[in-house]
Amino acid sequence: MLKRTKINASVSPKGSLETLSQREVQQLRETGSGSVYRLFRQCALAILNTGSHSDNAKTILEAYPDFEVKIHQQDRGIRLELINAPADAFVDGEMIASTREMLFSALRDIVYTQSELENKRIDLDSSEGITDYVFHLLRNAQTLRSGVEPKMVVCWGGHSISTEEYKYTKKVGHELGLRGLDICTGCGPGVMKGPMKGATISHAKQRNLKGRYLGLTEPGIIAAEAPNPIVNELVILPDIEKRLEAFVRVGHGIIIFPGGAGTAEEFLYLLGILTHPDNQDLPFPVILTGPKSAGPYLQQLHDFIGATLGEAAQQRYRMIVNDPAEVAREMAVGIKTVRQFRRERNDAFHFNWLLKIDESFQHPFEPTHEAMASLNLTREQPLHHLAANLRRAFSGIVAGNVKENGIRLIEEHGPYEIRGETTIMHPLDRLLQSFVEQHRMKLPGGSAYEPCYRVVD
Amino acid sequence: MLKRTKINASVSPKGSLETLSQREVQQLRETGSGSVYRLFRQCALAILNTGSHSDNAKTILEAYPDFEVKIHQQDRGIRLELINAPADAFVDGEMIASTREMLFSALRDIVYTQSELENKRIDLDSSEGITDYVFHLLRNAQTLRSGVEPKMVVCWGGHSISTEEYKYTKKVGHELGLRGLDICTGCGPGVMKGPMKGATISHAKQRNLKGRYLGLTEPGIIAAEAPNPIVNELVILPDIEKRLEAFVRVGHGIIIFPGGAGTAEEFLYLLGILTHPDNQDLPFPVILTGPKSAGPYLQQLHDFIGATLGEAAQQRYRMIVNDPAEVAREMAVGIKTVRQFRRERNDAFHFNWLLKIDESFQHPFEPTHEAMASLNLTREQPLHHLAANLRRAFSGIVAGNVKENGIRLIEEHGPYEIRGETTIMHPLDRLLQSFVEQHRMKLPGGSAYEPCYRVVD
Amino acid sequence: MLKRTKINASVSPKGSLETLSQREVQQLRETGSGSVYRLFRQCALAILNTGSHSDNAKTILEAYPDFEVKIHQQDRGIRLELINAPADAFVDGEMIASTREMLFSALRDIVYTQSELENKRIDLDSSEGITDYVFHLLRNAQTLRSGVEPKMVVCWGGHSISTEEYKYTKKVGHELGLRGLDICTGCGPGVMKGPMKGATISHAKQRNLKGRYLGLTEPGIIAAEAPNPIVNELVILPDIEKRLEAFVRVGHGIIIFPGGAGTAEEFLYLLGILTHPDNQDLPFPVILTGPKSAGPYLQQLHDFIGATLGEAAQQRYRMIVNDPAEVAREMAVGIKTVRQFRRERNDAFHFNWLLKIDESFQHPFEPTHEAMASLNLTREQPLHHLAANLRRAFSGIVAGNVKENGIRLIEEHGPYEIRGETTIMHPLDRLLQSFVEQHRMKLPGGSAYEPCYRVVD
Amino acid sequence: MLKRTKINASVSPKGSLETLSQREVQQLRETGSGSVYRLFRQCALAILNTGSHSDNAKTILEAYPDFEVKIHQQDRGIRLELINAPADAFVDGEMIASTREMLFSALRDIVYTQSELENKRIDLDSSEGITDYVFHLLRNAQTLRSGVEPKMVVCWGGHSISTEEYKYTKKVGHELGLRGLDICTGCGPGVMKGPMKGATISHAKQRNLKGRYLGLTEPGIIAAEAPNPIVNELVILPDIEKRLEAFVRVGHGIIIFPGGAGTAEEFLYLLGILTHPDNQDLPFPVILTGPKSAGPYLQQLHDFIGATLGEAAQQRYRMIVNDPAEVAREMAVGIKTVRQFRRERNDAFHFNWLLKIDESFQHPFEPTHEAMASLNLTREQPLHHLAANLRRAFSGIVAGNVKENGIRLIEEHGPYEIRGETTIMHPLDRLLQSFVEQHRMKLPGGSAYEPCYRVVD
Repeated sequence: MLKRTKINASVSPKGSLETLSQREVQQLRETGSGSVYRLFRQCALAILNTGSHSDNAKTILEAYPDFEVKIHQQDRGIRLELINAPADAFVDGEMIASTREMLFSALRDIVYTQSELENKRIDLDSSEGITDYVFHLLRNAQTLRSGVEPKMVVCWGGHSISTEEYKYTKKVGHELGLRGLDICTGCGPGVMKGPMKGATISHAKQRNLKGRYLGLTEPGIIAAEAPNPIVNELVILPDIEKRLEAFVRVGHGIIIFPGGAGTAEEFLYLLGILTHPDNQDLPFPVILTGPKSAGPYLQQLHDFIGATLGEAAQQRYRMIVNDPAEVAREMAVGIKTVRQFRRERNDAFHFNWLLKIDESFQHPFEPTHEAMASLNLTREQPLHHLAANLRRAFSGIVAGNVKENGIRLIEEHGPYEIRGETTIMHPLDRLLQSFVEQHRMKLPGGSAYEPCYRVVD
Repeated sequence: MLKRTKINASVSPKGSLETLSQREVQQLRETGSGSVYRLFRQCALAILNTGSHSDNAKTILEAYPDFEVKIHQQDRGIRLELINAPADAFVDGEMIASTREMLFSALRDIVYTQSELENKRIDLDSSEGITDYVFHLLRNAQTLRSGVEPKMVVCWGGHSISTEEYKYTKKVGHELGLRGLDICTGCGPGVMKGPMKGATISHAKQRNLKGRYLGLTEPGIIAAEAPNPIVNELVILPDIEKRLEAFVRVGHGIIIFPGGAGTAEEFLYLLGILTHPDNQDLPFPVILTGPKSAGPYLQQLHDFIGATLGEAAQQRYRMIVNDPAEVAREMAVGIKTVRQFRRERNDAFHFNWLLKIDESFQHPFEPTHEAMASLNLTREQPLHHLAANLRRAFSGIVAGNVKENGIRLIEEHGPYEIRGETTIMHPLDRLLQSFVEQHRMKLPGGSAYEPCYRVVD
Repeated sequence: MLKRTKINASVSPKGSLETLSQREVQQLRETGSGSVYRLFRQCALAILNTGSHSDNAKTILEAYPDFEVKIHQQDRGIRLELINAPADAFVDGEMIASTREMLFSALRDIVYTQSELENKRIDLDSSEGITDYVFHLLRNAQTLRSGVEPKMVVCWGGHSISTEEYKYTKKVGHELGLRGLDICTGCGPGVMKGPMKGATISHAKQRNLKGRYLGLTEPGIIAAEAPNPIVNELVILPDIEKRLEAFVRVGHGIIIFPGGAGTAEEFLYLLGILTHPDNQDLPFPVILTGPKSAGPYLQQLHDFIGATLGEAAQQRYRMIVNDPAEVAREMAVGIKTVRQFRRERNDAFHFNWLLKIDESFQHPFEPTHEAMASLNLTREQPLHHLAANLRRAFSGIVAGNVKENGIRLIEEHGPYEIRGETTIMHPLDRLLQSFVEQHRMKLPGGSAYEPCYRVVD
Repeated sequence: MLKRTKINASVSPKGSLETLSQREVQQLRETGSGSVYRLFRQCALAILNTGSHSDNAKTILEAYPDFEVKIHQQDRGIRLELINAPADAFVDGEMIASTREMLFSALRDIVYTQSELENKRIDLDSSEGITDYVFHLLRNAQTLRSGVEPKMVVCWGGHSISTEEYKYTKKVGHELGLRGLDICTGCGPGVMKGPMKGATISHAKQRNLKGRYLGLTEPGIIAAEAPNPIVNELVILPDIEKRLEAFVRVGHGIIIFPGGAGTAEEFLYLLGILTHPDNQDLPFPVILTGPKSAGPYLQQLHDFIGATLGEAAQQRYRMIVNDPAEVAREMAVGIKTVRQFRRERNDAFHFNWLLKIDESFQHPFEPTHEAMASLNLTREQPLHHLAANLRRAFSGIVAGNVKENGIRLIEEHGPYEIRGETTIMHPLDRLLQSFVEQHRMKLPGGSAYEPCYRVVD
């Protein structure tokens, strides 16, 4: 356990929760002592830890065992009291503005989710209900802005990548920013930071003061991947599946950079949706890219998609090696098509209503050992169901690697077992093996990677 | 019935309702054909009629019998189709921006109220529940702004006043605006317009581009008192009592100008609250004012308060005759005290949480002939109960004068009967009589006033 | 002499002159004691007197004989000390923001003019040099804004008009503002105020916060026609001819309302320029308009133009009686043509470089008795020379009516004599006579008009 | 010579020169073909080359021998036509916004200087005249903003520094930005870029959208040190001495990072001024800092100051090794003192009028071989004269190293000879020697450094 400097402080809302009724303040205070307290404390700690490089949930939580956050009622609204908080979040005793914003964003989203659930306003049993819920959560976070032209590019990829790969993501972000495009990521380090950093500089060069750096996260991930400080809009979705849906509903195009199991999960999710027959005519630019050194990795991922989901899936994206400007140009062109399509169909620019997401991609997957073991990874099912199950397999591996619950499960029961057809398990095993060899499963500066899974043929 | 120019048009949201979910659009569309349709149509017609001088609900409604408003679903949001709409709301075929804003404000408030009621989120049985509801409605209308210094002056008074009185309200508004104060009124003509008009000019003189002209109305009144076009924030509260509560919660001070039964209702409401023991130490500047010619009227009202509620009530306001600058100076000083008080008590600047409103002032009063006849207008009750009942008496008279329902009731059953103690009924009768004599009950350009009540000793 | 409330105060720059070098502060201070002091004192007094209705220069100056304005040097910049200033310019001891802006606008323009003259940077001997000077003065006042669409409507007409005419100008201004058009006037009362007041309300209705109310004046006129407080940009040109050139270079269209000799001067100036052969193809919308009651007046002016300058001149404007909406529509259409024309010719939107102004309209006319008597008012000259001389005749009459110098000359030498051909002098005499009969020469509340001229056949 | 991609393009003004008179456009066009053309072409080329790493003027100029820039007249203003321009300045054929701004900033400053000189408005013979000229040039560039709190930190240091030193400057910039401070540098690479880059990120973290990145350069330097693209205000002063004066007049504090001869020149200039008796009580925070690895370098520079100018000079700055947060805290405290001092003395926040600059620091030094050889580097003169002459010695060396003229002189006549007292020449020789050893004189990727001077005892 590291020794860290700690500080006590008291902060008022900025950006969210500034106008509350007395009843809402009361509810918030009860939250502070109730069941969601642990969740909020964990998110708060991650946010205050912004900029730290550890991505192991347990490490961060253990570094500040006596951290506390109290919600105080004031007639005028609320005030947070922080005890034993990470000192890095403060400058000369005052909390950094972006950290303050994110802290209250977390409170806002957790409270909203909680309150909607309690009031039973959400219908989580239907596909439409889930989509509606994602929409309302994003709108409540003021992420949906009417009348803004399509320009949100989602960047997916690993939090732990090589220096060369990181520099490449900055270059791509720089080229995107030069073309007036905004960036949305999972809001942690690595690929989640590089494109934002690059775009910050190029937005400045283009005198664009309104650049958006949207971070979408979820409670299980935020502690492992503390938001990077460039993020100027933070939304905490309640789980992995809502977060993935948020990405594909607000993004106008997606770039896949090198990464590990999490990136593979995202990529499979996306391809599973785009190969759905209903989405056949829907334009959605997707680019798989990386620096020259990542060439073999990209090819391997591409081959894995070919081997499991086939050529139809491969045709929904373009692979570009080592050419940031070309990536940005291609994305800009693709987004123009999206704009045209939505205009013709009268669809909103800020939310992709027309995208069909099968329910199998919407329901949360709880990666117990039993659930992992019983995933159907055979070809005896429609293509998008196979994609959904492959997605779940990777989701479980991510949990076993970095999420608090997953790590504990593995500590208790040993690695997950994943079973299926040879023609699927073989490529899967190879891909995972190469992730290990390329240190894509490893934490920076951490010890050797101990797989949390076993592929069983 | 007048002959009027009509127009068909289609408008998209501005200022409200720009980002809707598909389900919300669906609900709105159902609204368009459901039970609240009549209410929305009526408000819409009043708003489109902005600037017209008729204040008889029936007159306006009858002038546009074939007016229709349809809500259309678009993937992108909603669109209103207007059929046979008043042509004055348009310039060269395009709807005036403020009218468009108000139209969607009305839709926003009516839909919000309806949806909250349907979802049973509101507790209208407790005093706290009602206050909370008023708060949420105002917040949903973006009327509550955190961090803004107290400067909202409520102006109450008649919609139908003499030219001299109207000019006087403009002068007072001008002096208020010179001192950086904002204006809130019932948003119709007369006293509801004059101070806003005066402040528009003085805000311009002081290069103040952020002047607020807040109009608070309710469905039964809006048709009779179509919003004046200076209003740049319009909120439609569901009934008289919520509207009155909104006034005293968002206003930092109140000015009473000459008026008729409606003004008396408002004044009694205010004094009934301020004389409540819990509000004894709460600063709340109230000024009763008018031009020289209104001197006798002001004195009479002052005497009526003295005769019925006594000296304690008289001490909660100051009477200033014919001195606009002094009115504004006094109000500015009073609001400074309010600011200091709220700062000390940590109360919000944007909502007066600390003001105690007795439940007797919060529950709607339905002015049936029976209810009017059974009002307890004796001294055998606490002072604020007497004030509450006197307030109800005037509320009934207003309804009988200008509201659709009230007018119909009177047409059917003849005038209301009002009974009580001589020491109360006598001053009341005199006051009402003088209102009639001074044409404060009369509609402009209308026929002689036919009282809708009989005072019975 | 009136008795007036006076105040002493000290004000810092706002809007102009905020960043000065030490040398500039020094120059300003010397100004304060030097030859231009009298000029600045007079303008300052007029500005502080904003809203007053007297339009006799002598009256205002005599009302505040002990008014003084001192320029103090501070390391940080300058500060004005006002002694015995009109109290109306202040609210609770603080100067009204717009007054403060105008005060420093006056200082800015007077100092700029003075400094340019001293440094001999201006070439007042050539037509190009004069135009260049007008351009630089306007640019220094930040009046010229690149990239703004054409929408500046100049309104000319009398400062002393009937209530009906005044209301009509407000209505026209209201209709112009509804169509997004800005207003430029001579910045005094009457026609110089009405359209601005109307547009203030309609700009508010259209939620247009950037409405411009540009006032162009000159030292000899400002004292007589103190700027109305709606003006949010004030420029003081050094003389009548520069001011007239500023009007036609920055305005995209011009409306002529009823007025007296000053209005006739402006109208003749405009027609003299527009009938120049070089301007034949240049679009420039001009509308002559007034309420129904002004119909005969408009017809008379129209006839006078026909009788003296002929049909060619009449074709450069359109006469519209009693139809504010039609005036605004026509102007909006005309300005669209201007926009198209400038785009095609690559001419600036903010300054009408392509308009040819003959030197005879640019050089100042000093209305001595001799100059007035020797004006060539015959047909033995090109049309635009005749127009120029007629313009001068009216210019002299204006001076004799309201300007300090002119009034003194008339007091000393009696009325001017004006001579010329019968076919010109006859209509001129009739027009002037009707001005007198219609009280267009009279000061409000003043004594009977004593003509300052004699028309000699 | 490198092979580079070239492009032809046509651009319109942005940020400057948008509203020009026809005469000004004419003058500009003549400039395009006149004597200042070569100067503008050179600056334009450097700006278009922004981001390039070469800092040898000849290299850049030779890389684009056929680059041309033509000024075209349009009625609406001007347009620049670029022929064979560096392609890197464009994104998909459109010039990057910041580059466009800088291009017109250069034109603005060169034209202003030229025009002021031609019109003989400047008095370059007196100290006050020179200061006044610097003030006007900065004001014309809209760099002086009244009412803004003091927060401009000047960062001086080398363009060619080690990676560790560069990272350190970024960290210091980051800490300055966290505290709301702005950055001003010589606007090239290395120390001129690092602090701006760091502050860009921390300004974003603090949600500060108004961060200023002010670059002050001069024609002889801009080609060698092309402005880095973060600069959002660029001013080209006419020569070294005006540029140095601009730094100390607009900066509220100065940080000296490691660098070579140029940095030494700047440091000597600053200390020469601060040790002037008139500036004894004037607060001016100066910090000498660098990373741990630069410790010996800093000590050496500190010792050199001690050996030549003595302890008094050493007391005007503080040396901080390897502590970015402490540097920023110290600077923030120092600037608070400056703020307090200026407030008390009524001095402007935007221009340090009270700082006394001796004329010996204001007049340009032309580093001919003769001038260099005859510099008085003895102790037989007042301290600030010695500082002035030492400054000149370094100025000459900079010219010989990177400026076009200097390089040509050295090519023709061989190295400069510098003579003086042993107690001065000895430390000087050692310092220069160590600069060479530490590669502080070397161009990145260039060949071994060939000294352009010889120190003669």
